[in-house]
Amino acid sequence: MYSAVIDELIEKFERLPGIGRKSAERIAFYILERMSEDDAVNMANTIARAKKTVRLCECCQNLTEASPCSICSSAKRDKSVICVVESPEDVSAIENTNEYKGLYHVLHGALSPMDGVGPDDIKINELLLRLADGNVEEIILATNPTVNGTATAVYISKLLAPFNVKVTRIAHGIPIGSDIEYADKITIIKAMESRQIMN
Amino acid sequence: MYSAVIDELIEKFERLPGIGRKSAERIAFYILERMSEDDAVNMANTIARAKKTVRLCECCQNLTEASPCSICSSAKRDKSVICVVESPEDVSAIENTNEYKGLYHVLHGALSPMDGVGPDDIKINELLLRLADGNVEEIILATNPTVNGTATAVYISKLLAPFNVKVTRIAHGIPIGSDIEYADKITIIKAMESRQIMN
Repeated sequence: MYSAVIDELIEKFERLPGIGRKSAERIAFYILERMSEDDAVNMANTIARAKKTVRLCECCQNLTEASPCSICSSAKRDKSVICVVESPEDVSAIENTNEYKGLYHVLHGALSPMDGVGPDDIKINELLLRLADGNVEEIILATNPTVNGTATAVYISKLLAPFNVKVTRIAHGIPIGSDIEYADKITIIKAMESRQIMN
Repeated sequence: MYSAVIDELIEKFERLPGIGRKSAERIAFYILERMSEDDAVNMANTIARAKKTVRLCECCQNLTEASPCSICSSAKRDKSVICVVESPEDVSAIENTNEYKGLYHVLHGALSPMDGVGPDDIKINELLLRLADGNVEEIILATNPTVNGTATAVYISKLLAPFNVKVTRIAHGIPIGSDIEYADKITIIKAMESRQIMN
């Protein structure tokens, strides 16, 4: 029961993930009543421009404006290690630690037979192609510790068996700063299994 | 740690009400990875167009593309009654009942001395001007049953005292379909005070 363009604006926001009808209305009215016209037009331009300029890096498949991306083309990165993750957000989380100096490979998902996601639906072939030049020494599988993420890690590790490359999986255990008391069973089991000698 | 335009896209969404950093990232990647380019450009255009075309109705102050709005200019509406609400969303909620046939007046807020919102900051003068032609017989004060909404209703009712117009306040009580057991104290007190004779 709003005028046509307001209804349309609400509908556009309602289609975004995590936004229901009420939030979409709140956002639409925020734009119409609180934002300056400059800010609103700016926002619109950013959406259109981002969609037009952002593509996948030909090498690591991460989202980027220029391909190859800044990480793949950096002379400072260790090109002998590739960390395989499910999504661009994972790259960002690892980069924020400022510790990892190798390259990445973004799968854009995980294997999920229940949802019909098979090996050809995620960027596994593109990973194998990167091993052709023989420079890669280690592949770190940093898919999520979920059923699908673990299955994907196992699947890729099997695919990589014929290659002369070390395949590792990131460790799972009690998160730093948290309490064993509140950790779930599977995490505690993993943490016990992966225990390390201290002395 | 994303490329510049992705960071910019995330920031734009982060500034919207009810959207935190994580949600903004999720929305940005949804647009970049899942949406078609047409849909994204369409969304951008809708934001820009809505912001450019939507204005306040010269009469009721509701958001509209054409002024006066479709309600104010409709021959089917009863022009002797004006329902005063705080926001365009309230108009929508009342219109959705398909019961009310009068006109509206949108204040765009409520008096709130704590936040520095005084009578000149909301559309009270515009309401008084609408009484000039003498056609209005009743003003229904449908501001929210909050401290600010009630204060606004009381303030307006006092302003309207010199005019030859009936001033009413929407009823407050136990919501239909809910349970007295779970109603808050103030609502129960209001419901008792406003009790009506049944026989």
